[in-house]
Amino acid sequence: MKAAIIMGSDSDLPILQPALDTFKEFAVEYEVVIASAHRTPDKVHDFASTARDRGVQVIIAAAGAAAHLPGVVAAYTTLPVIGVPVNSTSLGGIDALLSIAQMPAGIPVATMAINGAKNAALFAMQILGVQDTEVQAKLTAHRSRMAEEVERKAQKAAEAIQRQ
Amino acid sequence: MKAAIIMGSDSDLPILQPALDTFKEFAVEYEVVIASAHRTPDKVHDFASTARDRGVQVIIAAAGAAAHLPGVVAAYTTLPVIGVPVNSTSLGGIDALLSIAQMPAGIPVATMAINGAKNAALFAMQILGVQDTEVQAKLTAHRSRMAEEVERKAQKAAEAIQRQ
Amino acid sequence: MKAAIIMGSDSDLPILQPALDTFKEFAVEYEVVIASAHRTPDKVHDFASTARDRGVQVIIAAAGAAAHLPGVVAAYTTLPVIGVPVNSTSLGGIDALLSIAQMPAGIPVATMAINGAKNAALFAMQILGVQDTEVQAKLTAHRSRMAEEVERKAQKAAEAIQRQ
Amino acid sequence: MKAAIIMGSDSDLPILQPALDTFKEFAVEYEVVIASAHRTPDKVHDFASTARDRGVQVIIAAAGAAAHLPGVVAAYTTLPVIGVPVNSTSLGGIDALLSIAQMPAGIPVATMAINGAKNAALFAMQILGVQDTEVQAKLTAHRSRMAEEVERKAQKAAEAIQRQ
Amino acid sequence: MKAAIIMGSDSDLPILQPALDTFKEFAVEYEVVIASAHRTPDKVHDFASTARDRGVQVIIAAAGAAAHLPGVVAAYTTLPVIGVPVNSTSLGGIDALLSIAQMPAGIPVATMAINGAKNAALFAMQILGVQDTEVQAKLTAHRSRMAEEVERKAQKAAEAIQRQ
Amino acid sequence: MKAAIIMGSDSDLPILQPALDTFKEFAVEYEVVIASAHRTPDKVHDFASTARDRGVQVIIAAAGAAAHLPGVVAAYTTLPVIGVPVNSTSLGGIDALLSIAQMPAGIPVATMAINGAKNAALFAMQILGVQDTEVQAKLTAHRSRMAEEVERKAQKAAEAIQRQ
Amino acid sequence: MKAAIIMGSDSDLPILQPALDTFKEFAVEYEVVIASAHRTPDKVHDFASTARDRGVQVIIAAAGAAAHLPGVVAAYTTLPVIGVPVNSTSLGGIDALLSIAQMPAGIPVATMAINGAKNAALFAMQILGVQDTEVQAKLTAHRSRMAEEVERKAQKAAEAIQRQ
Amino acid sequence: MKAAIIMGSDSDLPILQPALDTFKEFAVEYEVVIASAHRTPDKVHDFASTARDRGVQVIIAAAGAAAHLPGVVAAYTTLPVIGVPVNSTSLGGIDALLSIAQMPAGIPVATMAINGAKNAALFAMQILGVQDTEVQAKLTAHRSRMAEEVERKAQKAAEAIQRQ
Repeated sequence: MKAAIIMGSDSDLPILQPALDTFKEFAVEYEVVIASAHRTPDKVHDFASTARDRGVQVIIAAAGAAAHLPGVVAAYTTLPVIGVPVNSTSLGGIDALLSIAQMPAGIPVATMAINGAKNAALFAMQILGVQDTEVQAKLTAHRSRMAEEVERKAQKAAEAIQRQ
Repeated sequence: MKAAIIMGSDSDLPILQPALDTFKEFAVEYEVVIASAHRTPDKVHDFASTARDRGVQVIIAAAGAAAHLPGVVAAYTTLPVIGVPVNSTSLGGIDALLSIAQMPAGIPVATMAINGAKNAALFAMQILGVQDTEVQAKLTAHRSRMAEEVERKAQKAAEAIQRQ
Repeated sequence: MKAAIIMGSDSDLPILQPALDTFKEFAVEYEVVIASAHRTPDKVHDFASTARDRGVQVIIAAAGAAAHLPGVVAAYTTLPVIGVPVNSTSLGGIDALLSIAQMPAGIPVATMAINGAKNAALFAMQILGVQDTEVQAKLTAHRSRMAEEVERKAQKAAEAIQRQ
Repeated sequence: MKAAIIMGSDSDLPILQPALDTFKEFAVEYEVVIASAHRTPDKVHDFASTARDRGVQVIIAAAGAAAHLPGVVAAYTTLPVIGVPVNSTSLGGIDALLSIAQMPAGIPVATMAINGAKNAALFAMQILGVQDTEVQAKLTAHRSRMAEEVERKAQKAAEAIQRQ
Repeated sequence: MKAAIIMGSDSDLPILQPALDTFKEFAVEYEVVIASAHRTPDKVHDFASTARDRGVQVIIAAAGAAAHLPGVVAAYTTLPVIGVPVNSTSLGGIDALLSIAQMPAGIPVATMAINGAKNAALFAMQILGVQDTEVQAKLTAHRSRMAEEVERKAQKAAEAIQRQ
Repeated sequence: MKAAIIMGSDSDLPILQPALDTFKEFAVEYEVVIASAHRTPDKVHDFASTARDRGVQVIIAAAGAAAHLPGVVAAYTTLPVIGVPVNSTSLGGIDALLSIAQMPAGIPVATMAINGAKNAALFAMQILGVQDTEVQAKLTAHRSRMAEEVERKAQKAAEAIQRQ
Repeated sequence: MKAAIIMGSDSDLPILQPALDTFKEFAVEYEVVIASAHRTPDKVHDFASTARDRGVQVIIAAAGAAAHLPGVVAAYTTLPVIGVPVNSTSLGGIDALLSIAQMPAGIPVATMAINGAKNAALFAMQILGVQDTEVQAKLTAHRSRMAEEVERKAQKAAEAIQRQ
Repeated sequence: MKAAIIMGSDSDLPILQPALDTFKEFAVEYEVVIASAHRTPDKVHDFASTARDRGVQVIIAAAGAAAHLPGVVAAYTTLPVIGVPVNSTSLGGIDALLSIAQMPAGIPVATMAINGAKNAALFAMQILGVQDTEVQAKLTAHRSRMAEEVERKAQKAAEAIQRQ
């Protein structure tokens, strides 16, 4: 079970960190690649067209501005590509969101929220979990922990409100 | 191998038809459900929480306006949910796109382009193809056919331009 | 006379505080609940479907991003639901505003301004005041105080301008 | 039990018709007034400031473009005002939506979806139903009928899909 | 020769200050009023409907969010009303811009740029200058000074560039 | 008393016609010029810089897309320039609205609604009416007629509603 | 002197036709290629990386939706690439405009207006004219003809207005 | 070989600095001019109409807000004009982007990303490189250095990730 994370610039790394952390938390093997659709297109080409052969099962591709990276990766593989629009310009990420989401018929990219790296990792796991019951169990456990955390914070907030 | 398509209203069906056609073309088994996150929430709840047990492996959820359906479905299952924003209001679908894409951390939805039903089906197949080499082969063949069609149309256009 | 305030995350509490303060100021009984439409959907379901039986007469629901909470609550009750879009992403709250306001026919949500928690509380009181003359009197008094405060500030500003 | 519907221009009437129809369907008494916040401001003033005395319990105010009517009405009454943004310019109604939703603290307007007249009427009934069990019963019955209609259409669509 | 400046809140004063400064610089007599279209509507009504009788010749009205003030003022007078959209919400002022600019046929408001208070004052002077050659002379002189200042700064920047 | 109307293209004439009609209705003398800020810049320069000498007192300038015409005219005269954004592209006129409204400090343009030609003419008259009581009287009469027309249409609509 | 026009789909051809017509009108040699950044990425790669060797001096690349084509072409050549955003979705072309204009530092694309094919051809000629006096002469002549046409239409419109 | 950079205000200089730096790095001769389309229109006119005679081969024009400068410059020359939208208002630069990109047919401006000064300089060099093999060589070398830098940063990031 293996995922790949590709981003256009090392400056995107802090935004992507929650994806790395999630994979670590769930013991998902992953590789991280920095390559630009525009500045190092051949590296992107190589990355995408050999991904399945390297054992990669799902790809997370993150980019900001005219965020072409996820679409370019998707053009060179039939592996599922999850796109993360990065908020990196003065337009709040709407440029990246549209550049990733509005893909033409034929080459899909699964778009996440702006800066939605954590969800990209979780969605990658949901893909891997389609036929892997161990991953399914991890995801179900994660949902429970999330619910418990919401509940725990709710209690704390309730007490704070009580004290007002 | 089985997919499910859920939409909020029967008026969304023409927009979703390319997804059905794609599944038929590739002999993917699928079920179609019409249920509204707001008008029949219990049916949506039942649909989503029993989907994996019914053998569903991937879900396509389509909705317009304040398009809550994909997110609500995703809240009740750890199966991958692919969201299709439908252009059904005077805002050209940007309302549905933001309502589906901007999901909070924890519950991902894989957002497609506005009215991007065909890509939803192709992405569902890419998910199913992660561990199914037959599906992979179908997708690779589909990519070739697409390239050939682009090329064939290009030839035709080139001739038309020549005649100008 | 009783109101309920529900929000998707404890991080929304500072934005909602003016609603709590307004209810306290006007001695409106209220409950506060933190529950997520996506992370704790069953809690939201329970909250909404039993609200009227608990004596709740009006509900304020606040959420950011793909702000589904108000719509999901409204799907499970015929009590009036007031939605507060929270500015919690890089898009300035326009995502939450559209996700709450663009509800489909059948299940209304009364949308306030982005971060408009105070108005949510005042609108809740206007609802309660439809048949409660005491609440009406409080609202009328509040309007007078607001007018006086605008006037008082206007005087102060006028003096400051005079001194320029 | 009485509602009032006010709109800025007779050209808004077709958009508002679903509100009138809903009130008729549920036997809610209502008055309809056409008055412009800008062209007949005194009529709007009179309408709003005497509404409660005329027995009105809830007001629906609809307007397009720089849609000031709901806010101006709300300034002259503490009755709940429901605003309906009308799509009447080349901007698809986003101008009216922002002009109605972004009310400043102190004077709330309950904003519906663009052209959301039916929901305005239903929300008016939800307000009236807070303390009127007969109205509550009507609303509950309406929800059931909606669910049945979604289901009936779903069946029909399912059959059509079957025949494909 | 007399201008009036009205704003909805004392918090708008710093944004409006350049208008006051411009009037002072050009010795234009002016009055400043703080009154809210929603919180003190009667004061706005009185201000606008008596403005011409008080000798006012042109009105600047500034407001943010659902910026109704300029339109409401314009409804009560045939004096020219210049609207200044104030950036006071998370939407960067586009809400105020649309609320002021998109006035319906019949009641015009002359919209300036977001936070464009200085231009509001200059435009007021251009109106007053239509039949007042002294004001015309002041405006022409102001244009020259602006050009000189641009030129002076250009020189300075040129020298700085030279030194790089 | 004289106005000038300038537009960038003869295709804008139908949008501007309400301005011409309003001037005719009120017997305001006017000239109409078609000249493009980009295609015939010298003509625009000449038009603007000689306007006051030709007796023009107020200018209406209309343009679509990157609507530079009003700003370019305003750069060459201290006469008041009223800008009309024309909806002439696929963006619904928001491009023209921003290109006209967001003028930098120093050179104001009075922006009307998208396609708001009638209001441009009325605002021109409000400018001319600052010191001309005859124009004031015409404007006051026009306001009364508008109010009567709204009222007449309201009656008619009321009767139609009655008959439903 | 040679230009190349590349577009992602034969459906873009009608939008690009004015570019072809302009090149024909000015006797600029050109090639037309239909190739998709996503469906036939290798063809795009070949087209772009061999363009200079084929004698191409400037490239026009047109695409709609998530319009990656111009950026992908630009990544493989240092020839100037002119991007034409095509209005091909429900968002009016703003998606394509942002996808083309917001290119990251290092790989520029010269963005034209939405559907601005004619200007793309004219800009290509302006590039070719930098060192080619014959092209310069053609462009100067074209500007004169445009000015004459604006003037001729202005006369015609003036006469039509006269007859009103 | 000579370029010109024009900007509307000295406050735009920090945004344009990367263009100056790029020209210095590549030993491209350039002039810098500060002149405002609105405040010093005659200087802009002179700058643009004499540019070719001064030996200028390509022009970079930068402006914010209602960014008319690039279009006005383009109206007075057939040299290629590269427009840089500057983020200088509360709208994040979308106003400037639309004001520059949406030029009407006949007068093209090559629009860069918001604040995209570096790309403006690189694009200017790509224009100059059409017939200058030395410039081509510099651009090819620059691309290689960029790719190396992306790669070097990628290595560094990979090591940092390793150490996590």
